[in-house]
This record gives sequence, structure tokens and C-alpha cells, in this order.
Amino acid sequence: MYNHRTTDRLEYFSDAVLAIAATLLATELPKPEAGTDLLGEILKNWPHYAAFAASFLFICVAWSNHHNMFIYIKKTDQYLLILHILFLMFVTLQSFTTGLLALHVGKPDERTAALIYHTILVLMTVLYNCVWWYATRKKGLLEENTDPALVKLLTREYAIAPVLHLAALIISFWNVAFSIIPIVLLYIYFALPRFSEKKIRERNESIQG
Amino acid sequence: MYNHRTTDRLEYFSDAVLAIAATLLATELPKPEAGTDLLGEILKNWPHYAAFAASFLFICVAWSNHHNMFIYIKKTDQYLLILHILFLMFVTLQSFTTGLLALHVGKPDERTAALIYHTILVLMTVLYNCVWWYATRKKGLLEENTDPALVKLLTREYAIAPVLHLAALIISFWNVAFSIIPIVLLYIYFALPRFSEKKIRERNESIQG
Amino acid sequence: MYNHRTTDRLEYFSDAVLAIAATLLATELPKPEAGTDLLGEILKNWPHYAAFAASFLFICVAWSNHHNMFIYIKKTDQYLLILHILFLMFVTLQSFTTGLLALHVGKPDERTAALIYHTILVLMTVLYNCVWWYATRKKGLLEENTDPALVKLLTREYAIAPVLHLAALIISFWNVAFSIIPIVLLYIYFALPRFSEKKIRERNESIQG
Amino acid sequence: MYNHRTTDRLEYFSDAVLAIAATLLATELPKPEAGTDLLGEILKNWPHYAAFAASFLFICVAWSNHHNMFIYIKKTDQYLLILHILFLMFVTLQSFTTGLLALHVGKPDERTAALIYHTILVLMTVLYNCVWWYATRKKGLLEENTDPALVKLLTREYAIAPVLHLAALIISFWNVAFSIIPIVLLYIYFALPRFSEKKIRERNESIQG
Repeated sequence: MYNHRTTDRLEYFSDAVLAIAATLLATELPKPEAGTDLLGEILKNWPHYAAFAASFLFICVAWSNHHNMFIYIKKTDQYLLILHILFLMFVTLQSFTTGLLALHVGKPDERTAALIYHTILVLMTVLYNCVWWYATRKKGLLEENTDPALVKLLTREYAIAPVLHLAALIISFWNVAFSIIPIVLLYIYFALPRFSEKKIRERNESIQG
Repeated sequence: MYNHRTTDRLEYFSDAVLAIAATLLATELPKPEAGTDLLGEILKNWPHYAAFAASFLFICVAWSNHHNMFIYIKKTDQYLLILHILFLMFVTLQSFTTGLLALHVGKPDERTAALIYHTILVLMTVLYNCVWWYATRKKGLLEENTDPALVKLLTREYAIAPVLHLAALIISFWNVAFSIIPIVLLYIYFALPRFSEKKIRERNESIQG
Repeated sequence: MYNHRTTDRLEYFSDAVLAIAATLLATELPKPEAGTDLLGEILKNWPHYAAFAASFLFICVAWSNHHNMFIYIKKTDQYLLILHILFLMFVTLQSFTTGLLALHVGKPDERTAALIYHTILVLMTVLYNCVWWYATRKKGLLEENTDPALVKLLTREYAIAPVLHLAALIISFWNVAFSIIPIVLLYIYFALPRFSEKKIRERNESIQG
Repeated sequence: MYNHRTTDRLEYFSDAVLAIAATLLATELPKPEAGTDLLGEILKNWPHYAAFAASFLFICVAWSNHHNMFIYIKKTDQYLLILHILFLMFVTLQSFTTGLLALHVGKPDERTAALIYHTILVLMTVLYNCVWWYATRKKGLLEENTDPALVKLLTREYAIAPVLHLAALIISFWNVAFSIIPIVLLYIYFALPRFSEKKIRERNESIQG
């Protein structure tokens, strides 16, 4: 009972942090003042709106995956908590790096802003994977009857995010615009139905059936 | 169990996003500095206060309807999640479009601001309906013993919001002030007791009785 | 089941709004820049810190009372929801009126700011009482075996807040500084153990014993 | 039932306040505008990033300990609530004192900013301990079968935080940079596995085994 409750509050805390981080993104959008050409200003500010949409979707995808992960992680210990807190710290930095990128797109320091943006995403997704790796290796944290094949599948699926973000980081040294390619690939991957999800559904049907 | 829990966390996450989006609206209100004529400034800023009240009520109505919808939606899949995340994205944009409208009421770009405001509301309510349409069409997402007549009734009731917001959008091309008429109609509609609610109450009584 | 769940989500939503409204207050505190006399600036800004503390305590007292109220309110309907949403709207305005008051204390428009501050508090506490009045009068919303004497006691206790805030409003027409007296009385009242609480504890003991 | 529910909502409210306070920290980070040397500006702003990380970790450690405390505190009364609300008030002040410290590091008023920062942390951790002291002394608030040896152990562990923060406060009178030493010691202490945790785990095993 003690440990189950622990996971519950960890999940509520994470949900709250992710929800706030996602909602605060919109408060950073520049609102052109009266007296300016409103439509022109809005169109000129497109990097802000694109960065808002990308970061909002990113945080929601992180929430959704986080949620799937904690179907399997049933107990926590102090080390898992520390890894998880560091993961959340990089989530809350999203609004900062998104704003930075939007401010500098098409400006001399575009590359620096893109490198900062991608570095935070690499660190965040690496920490997400660390939480999972630790939970699968340490005895007694995963749900007891978790299918080892499913654990392996999820480990591989979760690892795709830091790999593609690292690719985006490396590409942005050479060309900032092209660094969007691995990000788009990542979104397509997350939008398509996944093997692990099919496995989960089959498992649920066999439990409930 | 897996899917039920999924809906729970989706509801908590949505509640958090809606609560934050609603609460942040007040932080956008202009506070006249000392040295100005406070009462005069506050009265001059009436569009900000009117926009605040309208958007706050709107988000709370969205929350209340969302809450009713998830009495029937018991399981989620990836596509419902994506539709739902896009719905939340437009919810968080409310504070931006509200601020924009308040800044430009009675100024040259009033029409542009109103068109942006209504467009976001149309997209938000269309996505809300998409979540419902998808849940009713896909097998296994609705509660098993949901009355098909009630589903039909709710489908019709939910569709009223995007229709009236589209009307407001079209009217604001011609006259911004009049575009408030369909919005007021929508609020009156939501304030009156509804047929679906009566049906729900009867159903509950027959279950509990 | 349907209605119980309704109250749950209403409580979570309210908790979230109250928690955000309370936490956002600190973001309004002025931070003196480097180069100024830090301690002198902080002391000069005392109205901001006093207003922050008062509003934070106020929202927490509102949360605590709200929480007690929903021990008895077990079901909601549309009208209770509307009253409740209006109550929350005035809660979120706290950060605005607090900031306004802090900006204008000791300035020419002090009275106007104090009147706005107290008016919002009167409206908020009246709406709080409306939620309770409606719940006690409408059949089927209160927990079935609620002691009528306790309901009467709570009705009287809840009514003290709008009465004292109205007194503060009236006093501030005449003298802004003295308008703090009914507020201090209200806090002392809330800090002392109350008759209703004793009654609740006795009731719990009789249930559990 | 009544009291258990009380603790639940107190925990949700606290989780929400702590999550929001932690997430808002990132919104205070200065974003260098285009046209400046981005990397240079970011490096120059290092106190802001260091203060952000320290305060984020601090709030998360507070959340984690708070969470552990409420495994044992099962019922609340009005006085515990008041102490707890004051604790939360100082938590929300974190973003203010963190911003203040970051603005004044290396500037003439560095000492004043550090004293304010440490004072708020001393008050916050003292109040945290007050909540625990009150709960352990007042009859009927702790879980019935709590091991008295564990209560004693936790009382000692919780007391370490205000002692080390007081040390930091005293050191910063003499040297601001060295005041970080007790803080680092505190973090190392919280990162290492603790005796109380081992005791809790053993207890759980004996309950579940």
C-alpha cells in the first residue's frame, strides 16, 4: 500500500507539472499592440506560433508516454525519484528554450538558440529513458507480472526519442532548418499505432476476457 | 483496468490544463499604475474585463461539458488522445486571443482580432466534437450500456457550439459588435436545463432506484 | 455514481483553481533591480508584501472552507455548477485586486483601489454562500443523513464572511486604514476552534466509535 | 472517513501548489533578445540558471518529504491546517527570493539578497517541522500503528533542514559564497539512502509478507 500510494502522488505531481508547463507556453506568445498592422505582425511572428505548437505537442507526447510508463512502474525508491525530478526540471525548461528559439529564428544567433533547444530535449529524453532503465533493472519496482518481451519492446521504443533529438542537435550544427527533419519523423512515429500498444491491448483482452 | 486508468489521468490532465488556462486569464488584466485616474482607466479598459469574463465562463463551460462527455467515454486509444491534445492546445490559446481582442476593440484592427478570436473558438469546438464523434464511432471506447438515444442527443447538443461560433465568425466579417449575438445565445442555451441532462437524471434514478 | 463523480471533479477543478490563484500571487511581487538600495526598496514596497500575505491566507481559508462544505454537498446540478463557476471567477480576480491595492496604497486613488478590493471579496463570499444556500434548499444535493442543526450552524458561520467584508467595504468609504479591522476579526474567527467543527468531530466519533 | 478525505484534499492542494511553484520558476529566466551575443548573455546570466536549478530541486525535495510525512499523518485539524498553509506560503515565495538572489549576485546588495533567501528557507523548513511536531504530539492525527521509533527517527531527520539553513543564514553574514556549503551538505544528505527509509521498507515487507 505504501509504495502504490507513492506512485500515485508522483503521477499527480508530474501531471500537474506537465499540464502547467504546457499551459504556460501560450502566455509567452507576443501580442501585437493596437496601432501596428495586426495581421502583418502576427505573420512576422510565425516562429513564435510554430515553436508554441511544437512545444505544446512535445509536452503532451511526453505526458502520454509518461502515463504509459507508469502503468508498469508500480513502486518507487529514492533514486527513481531523483531521476524523475531531473526529468521534470528539463520539462519546465521547455518554455524557456522555446521562447529563446522563437526570438532568434532568422537572426545571427539562430544556431546557438537551436543548439540550446535541442540539448535540453536530448537531456530530457535521456532522463526519461534513465527512469525506465532504472525501474526495469531494480528488483521490485515494475508490476510483478509484466511481460519481459513488452519491457524490451518499450525500452527500444523509448530510446528512439533521445536518438532522434541527438540527430537534430548534430544536424543543427550544420543547418538549423534541416534539424526539424528528425523531429517530424519522431512525431510521425508517435502518431502511428505502435507494436507495444498492440501488445498491451492483446494483454488487456486476455486479462479481461 | 488499464484503459479505465487511462481515462482517469486524461481527465486529471485536462482538468489541470483547463483550470490553469482559466486562472491565468486574470493575470493578463491591465493594472493602472498610481498617478493615473484609477477609476477612469478601469472604465476605459472595459474590453479587457468583458473579455476576461467571457473567456473565463467559456473555459468553465468547456470544462463542464468535457466532464459530462467523459462520463460516457471509458476507454481511450492513441487517436482519441491526439484529438484531445489538439483540443487542449486551442483551449490554452484562449488567453492569447482574449488578450488580442481586448487590445484591439475599437481600434483599426478590431475585425482582424475578432476573426482570430472566433477562428480559434471554432477550431476548439470542432475538435471537441471530433473527440466525441471518434469515441462514439470506434468500438469499445464508450461505456457499454450507454443508451444510443442519449448518444444521439449529446451528439446534436455538442454540435451547437461550433455552429454558433462559425456564425459569430461569419457575422464578424460584416459587423464585429453583432458577432456577440450567437455567443450570448450559446450561453443562454448552456444555462437552461437540457434534454440530455433530464435523460441522464432519469437513467441514474432507474439505476439507483 | 454519476453524481458522486461529478462532485469529485468539481472539487479537483476548484482545488486546482484555488492552488494556482494562491501560487500566482507571489509572481506579482516587485523585485528591486540591482543598483538600487535593496533593503530600502523592499521596505518601501511593504504594501505589496502585506497584500500578498493577506490574499494568500484569504485564498487558503476559502479553500479550507470550500473543502468543509463539500463534505456535505454530495451531488451537483447545473445551477450549483453555474454559481460555483462564478465564485471561482471572483477567486481568480484576487491577484488583480491585490496588485491594484498594493500599487495605490498611500497614493491619491487609494480609496478607489480599496473599494474595488472589498467589492470583489463581498461578491466572492456572497457567491460562496449562494452555493451553500442552493445546495441546502434543493432536494437531493446534500448527503442524506446530514444533521439539520449542523446545516443551520454552517449557514450562520458561512454568512459571517460576506457581512464582515461588507463592513470593510463601507468603512473604506470613510477610512481605508480602518477597513482592515473587520478583516482581522474574520481571520481571528477562522483561527479559533468553531462550534461546527466540534459538532463534526463528535459526529465522526459517534460514526467510527 | 471524514478525516481521511481531509488529508487527501490537503495533499492534492499541496501537490498543486508545489508543482505550480516549481514550474513557474522557469518563467523567471531572462531570455536574451536577438541582436545581443546570445551565448555571452546566457553565460553572464549564470546566477539565474544556478538559482533556478537550486530552487527547483529544493521544491521537489520538499514535495518528496511532504509526501513521506503524509504517509503517517492520517487526520488533520484546524491548527495543523493553519501551520500547513503558512508552510505553503513560504514555498510560493521561493520564486521571489530566487529571482532576487539571481538579480543581486556579484552586486553591492548581494548579502541582503542572500539573507532574505536564507531567511525564507529557514522559516519554510521550521514550519514544515511544526506541522510534523504538532501531528506527532496531538492525539489521533498519526496513523494508529505507527512505530514510535520511526516517528523519533523522522523527527530528527526533518530537523536537519532548518538547522543547515540556519547555518547558511549565519554564514552569509560573513561570506555569501560559503553559505552554499550547508545547502550542498543538505542535498547530499537527501540523496543518500536514509535510515528511516530502510525502516519503512522493512515495515512494508513485514506488512505485505
